[in-house]
Amino acid sequence: MGNTFGHLFRITTFGESHGGGVGVVIDGCPPKLEISAEEIQFELDRRRPGQSKITTPRKEADTCEILSGVFEGKTLGTPIAILVRNKDTRSQDYDEMVEKYRPSHADATYDAKYGIRNWQGGGRSSARETIGRVAAGAIAKKILQQVAGIEVLGYVKRIKDLEAVIDSKTVTLEQVESNIVRCPNLECAEQMIALVESARDQGDSLGGVVECVARSVPKGLGSPVFDKLEADLAKGVMSLPATKGFEIGSGFSGTLMMGSEHNDEFYIDEAGEVRTATNRSGGVQGGISNGEDIVIRVAFKPTATIRKEQRTVTTEGEETTLAGKGRHDPCVLPRAVPMVEAMVALVLCDHLLRQHGQCKVL
Amino acid sequence: MGNTFGHLFRITTFGESHGGGVGVVIDGCPPKLEISAEEIQFELDRRRPGQSKITTPRKEADTCEILSGVFEGKTLGTPIAILVRNKDTRSQDYDEMVEKYRPSHADATYDAKYGIRNWQGGGRSSARETIGRVAAGAIAKKILQQVAGIEVLGYVKRIKDLEAVIDSKTVTLEQVESNIVRCPNLECAEQMIALVESARDQGDSLGGVVECVARSVPKGLGSPVFDKLEADLAKGVMSLPATKGFEIGSGFSGTLMMGSEHNDEFYIDEAGEVRTATNRSGGVQGGISNGEDIVIRVAFKPTATIRKEQRTVTTEGEETTLAGKGRHDPCVLPRAVPMVEAMVALVLCDHLLRQHGQCKVL
Amino acid sequence: MGNTFGHLFRITTFGESHGGGVGVVIDGCPPKLEISAEEIQFELDRRRPGQSKITTPRKEADTCEILSGVFEGKTLGTPIAILVRNKDTRSQDYDEMVEKYRPSHADATYDAKYGIRNWQGGGRSSARETIGRVAAGAIAKKILQQVAGIEVLGYVKRIKDLEAVIDSKTVTLEQVESNIVRCPNLECAEQMIALVESARDQGDSLGGVVECVARSVPKGLGSPVFDKLEADLAKGVMSLPATKGFEIGSGFSGTLMMGSEHNDEFYIDEAGEVRTATNRSGGVQGGISNGEDIVIRVAFKPTATIRKEQRTVTTEGEETTLAGKGRHDPCVLPRAVPMVEAMVALVLCDHLLRQHGQCKVL
Amino acid sequence: MGNTFGHLFRITTFGESHGGGVGVVIDGCPPKLEISAEEIQFELDRRRPGQSKITTPRKEADTCEILSGVFEGKTLGTPIAILVRNKDTRSQDYDEMVEKYRPSHADATYDAKYGIRNWQGGGRSSARETIGRVAAGAIAKKILQQVAGIEVLGYVKRIKDLEAVIDSKTVTLEQVESNIVRCPNLECAEQMIALVESARDQGDSLGGVVECVARSVPKGLGSPVFDKLEADLAKGVMSLPATKGFEIGSGFSGTLMMGSEHNDEFYIDEAGEVRTATNRSGGVQGGISNGEDIVIRVAFKPTATIRKEQRTVTTEGEETTLAGKGRHDPCVLPRAVPMVEAMVALVLCDHLLRQHGQCKVL
Repeated sequence: MGNTFGHLFRITTFGESHGGGVGVVIDGCPPKLEISAEEIQFELDRRRPGQSKITTPRKEADTCEILSGVFEGKTLGTPIAILVRNKDTRSQDYDEMVEKYRPSHADATYDAKYGIRNWQGGGRSSARETIGRVAAGAIAKKILQQVAGIEVLGYVKRIKDLEAVIDSKTVTLEQVESNIVRCPNLECAEQMIALVESARDQGDSLGGVVECVARSVPKGLGSPVFDKLEADLAKGVMSLPATKGFEIGSGFSGTLMMGSEHNDEFYIDEAGEVRTATNRSGGVQGGISNGEDIVIRVAFKPTATIRKEQRTVTTEGEETTLAGKGRHDPCVLPRAVPMVEAMVALVLCDHLLRQHGQCKVL
Repeated sequence: MGNTFGHLFRITTFGESHGGGVGVVIDGCPPKLEISAEEIQFELDRRRPGQSKITTPRKEADTCEILSGVFEGKTLGTPIAILVRNKDTRSQDYDEMVEKYRPSHADATYDAKYGIRNWQGGGRSSARETIGRVAAGAIAKKILQQVAGIEVLGYVKRIKDLEAVIDSKTVTLEQVESNIVRCPNLECAEQMIALVESARDQGDSLGGVVECVARSVPKGLGSPVFDKLEADLAKGVMSLPATKGFEIGSGFSGTLMMGSEHNDEFYIDEAGEVRTATNRSGGVQGGISNGEDIVIRVAFKPTATIRKEQRTVTTEGEETTLAGKGRHDPCVLPRAVPMVEAMVALVLCDHLLRQHGQCKVL
Repeated sequence: MGNTFGHLFRITTFGESHGGGVGVVIDGCPPKLEISAEEIQFELDRRRPGQSKITTPRKEADTCEILSGVFEGKTLGTPIAILVRNKDTRSQDYDEMVEKYRPSHADATYDAKYGIRNWQGGGRSSARETIGRVAAGAIAKKILQQVAGIEVLGYVKRIKDLEAVIDSKTVTLEQVESNIVRCPNLECAEQMIALVESARDQGDSLGGVVECVARSVPKGLGSPVFDKLEADLAKGVMSLPATKGFEIGSGFSGTLMMGSEHNDEFYIDEAGEVRTATNRSGGVQGGISNGEDIVIRVAFKPTATIRKEQRTVTTEGEETTLAGKGRHDPCVLPRAVPMVEAMVALVLCDHLLRQHGQCKVL
Repeated sequence: MGNTFGHLFRITTFGESHGGGVGVVIDGCPPKLEISAEEIQFELDRRRPGQSKITTPRKEADTCEILSGVFEGKTLGTPIAILVRNKDTRSQDYDEMVEKYRPSHADATYDAKYGIRNWQGGGRSSARETIGRVAAGAIAKKILQQVAGIEVLGYVKRIKDLEAVIDSKTVTLEQVESNIVRCPNLECAEQMIALVESARDQGDSLGGVVECVARSVPKGLGSPVFDKLEADLAKGVMSLPATKGFEIGSGFSGTLMMGSEHNDEFYIDEAGEVRTATNRSGGVQGGISNGEDIVIRVAFKPTATIRKEQRTVTTEGEETTLAGKGRHDPCVLPRAVPMVEAMVALVLCDHLLRQHGQCKVL
């Protein structure tokens, strides 16, 4: 339970940090979509460890194998299973974790829930789990692009208190990928990189905010009440490791406005389309897309595992201290960008199919 | 689709603002729970309109009828259907809405999605839909209390820029209910009430933040990966009308800390329990409750319907203006409190049952 | 749990035999479908008690009220809630059932599962629960008819050992409704009626077989593996009260053939369509409709409640005897016909929407 | 969609006959269950091809690899992914199938649904898909055994018109496995083997009936209404390839009895337990287990692929003939036994967990 996401376009992930591998089964994919392992690998490479000097040095090529569901380069409509083997596993780094709970990590809660835990690299709570999401997200993105020209793009908006000015309407993938911190504002990006290096050198870590925009989303996606688009987006990204907050459109700062300031007034654009003059709604009204850009923000806490010594307890209930030894990111933000994009793409793709299923039949 | 919430403790709501009524079907409720219509009515009265001078004057007693699933005062384990009839409906207030889309409301998006819309009072997008959630939440609360002594309590933390200092560890229901704005800090509450009255008098509206705490939550609730507790909580509250943001624990402000500051160090308390010295995690680590208080915050935008005139368009694609005539809350926060509590209780109850189903069998 | 059926076209039923009423919430219905309470009532009248001398004399008009989801005669795409109040309830008939378990009924198992039971009229296990299914089935039938011209028609094929020769390709609703036993073979129908009257007069009961055909089903409905069309059809009808068996196409008798006899050879018809010369597959191959008529058969056991005295036990664990007093059908078959049709229509409608959602997007 | 089964104990299968492999992801497994690849392999060996002279000669060791969810011999509570690589694939055997639809197979319907098809060995419609089910079933069986001492045992009851007398109350696994046709009545087994060999030699095929019994099932499993135990069992087994019918207890023949004959009268046994004198209900009343043996029967049609020449059509719409060349079972019954057992175990395990989740919390 809890390892499946989506209703019509539905993914199930599996795998621990160490062991046979991690992966995903994608069920409900439309047939006849052209897809290659290379396209999936492109996104996996954006999330893989060891990609730059500011990420964890764990070396994982994270090469994916498509086990099923694709035939002669096209999807069959049957489940697409994708497997990534675990390679550079140094379980000796985790020897101490057999007995000591890492603060603000999932060690203690897994033990409380299951009474058993794979202590190697965090087991199922490792960010390696997100490989399956990112692989599935690559396919979702392609569907969104082909069916409706939808583009999903994330970037680092803030690290600690370094916030970048970025125009969500015009930012491009090239700009995002132009630097290792994935902040399309180059000046700010340099400062961010320096900040991350400094934290890493101190054995400490940083958090921040990823912003993600979905452009060219057709009107009408999303289901009222519980499966509002913003509700499913919130669930999607809040299920990523290390997330502490979610906003859409005006978010928390919108609560400081009066209704007369906050409302998005309607007008008719040159093409005769109903549009809104502002986009405080973030592209969603009443849980349904209104054709404007969908804009969300996600708060990521500073990485829990740090080299600095901290107070903790053992599984036997003794107080002790711990200094992290594994290879970890001093800041998860750069690698979180493709994860956030994947979750947004998965939600939109699911709702696109649901919209066809319910509202384009009669 | 999209009108069902929960996996083992599962609710389905129905109904529009005008018409036969609104309600809920609760499936999966444990049998032999003592429950009365009065207990449900207590929560419905906290959300009903017309309860004070700062809420909408729409007069709805919102009296609930239990149609099924309860026999001689106890739950049967079969679906509990609860119906609330619509009474004080003045559809003439909405005559203009037949043709004009209310800005930042769901009128235009419902039309885009379905090609049809019940324009009376917002139809399904009306906050009346939350009656079913609050009724179900009353039952969820009782289960949580009986099985594990869990208490779920919400309150208004901020209206516009008026933020109250409140100790989430000790705040009581009596304090929350002691004033009409549901802010347990009485001094701040008075200021908030004045602010809402002022906005109402100007024909304008206000937003703010509801905070909600769940106390005495046992360790081990929540499912890793997609159904992390914070993910389901985020979905639950972000599916409420007018929400724009969600936080758990340190939330967005936690991103400003270094990892060494942010981490919740472990210690052993007098009872020999593993506890955390701080609670930046907000009671959840790796998606699973850790025994500390669960603390979340939800951003509600200023009410979209205001009396002030605004630019909008007609269903025929003509630009026009609109000044709201219906009876609406100048600030949804006071009535949002029981809604947020309901969603938190529903999520916790579902995960409590799931925990029994998976982890207490062997 | 267990009171919801379907994935995209999804129904949830509620209600006990005695109490506030029974009903259904239909989620995922396509918008803008014209539907009236009268159309739903037509099907409810086919299943209601007291409709003829060979059904239970319990008098229930079973008048339905549409609570939500329909506006000005058309579906809104939001949940359609339908309520039927319980009227002619004589709970005194059930006084004995408070203490005595009726043989082959659900009294003892409900007590074993829930530790509580509404003993009035069988509570949730009453066939009154099927009202919600039949109401929802009426809407499903209309969608099937409008989208694809699909017709779903059931009839009594056999009562005890009286088996009727009926041509599933040509039988009409008028023929089925031409007599009170719903067997379109008139000669056989008369014999069946006499047989039922005889059983009723002896205080005994009869079982039999309902056959149901779905005609003009487009190729391609059904999902391979677990949600094969025959699997969902089997689940649907086997969830009806009193069912003991399910067959599709050649069914159990097909197992007596050699493969070379059983296989449905392909040919090209005048219209150039791929067709099968025989239809032992029953319209489904590999879980997917092949364009031929879908033909299923359902075994209904003889009604469990009979006036004849039988050995049973009390809730206190004492052996005793019981002679049924409630008003029951001596043979459920005539009223089971619209129930089987409803379940078949619900399954097909769900798969029709799913097919659009997955395979008609790209 | 359609590749996931179960609600709390939930499996998702993937894979085609040819390609990277087939497998399963099991979500919701209770933690700390001891399980080994050997235990899973035992069941896989019972279903694998090439196991005897009366099954397909395709040589597949079907060796399973546990990719995740098991650590130091125990389940973690996280998803258990199991992979079986495809080995002995002779796609040249299927060259003709690129263009010719095999009668009563899924080739034509897959094309109709998806517009694309993996023609190698039937792709997803191959019985190789059931490997994932059987692997998951092995784990479900172990849980059932450990939690409640439940035993699930299937056997060949009939091949064509050769029906064996078997006592479902006392039959043992050893008796079933004592011969290659898996019929525990040895005399009948010999006749069956001779019949299958004769059919094979003629290039023809046979069908029959598998009976399956679940013993020591506690009272109270199963959920009323749609998820009745018999409904979920029916769906489970009718989702297996080649099934045409399902019965529980008295099944179709029960419809020939009068109610007074058919009802299972209650009595109190020596242990003071409520029992039934007969078991026409097949262990389930009102959708809930009553503590008696659950007994079901499943009809399997004769294998569709035969060496005899048959009329068919090409994908281009030309009439032609086809004589099967692949390596196929002349009769699927012996290998179907572990498949039926797996589906029954999966259904029972899911309902066991659900029963704990709903009814053992308060």
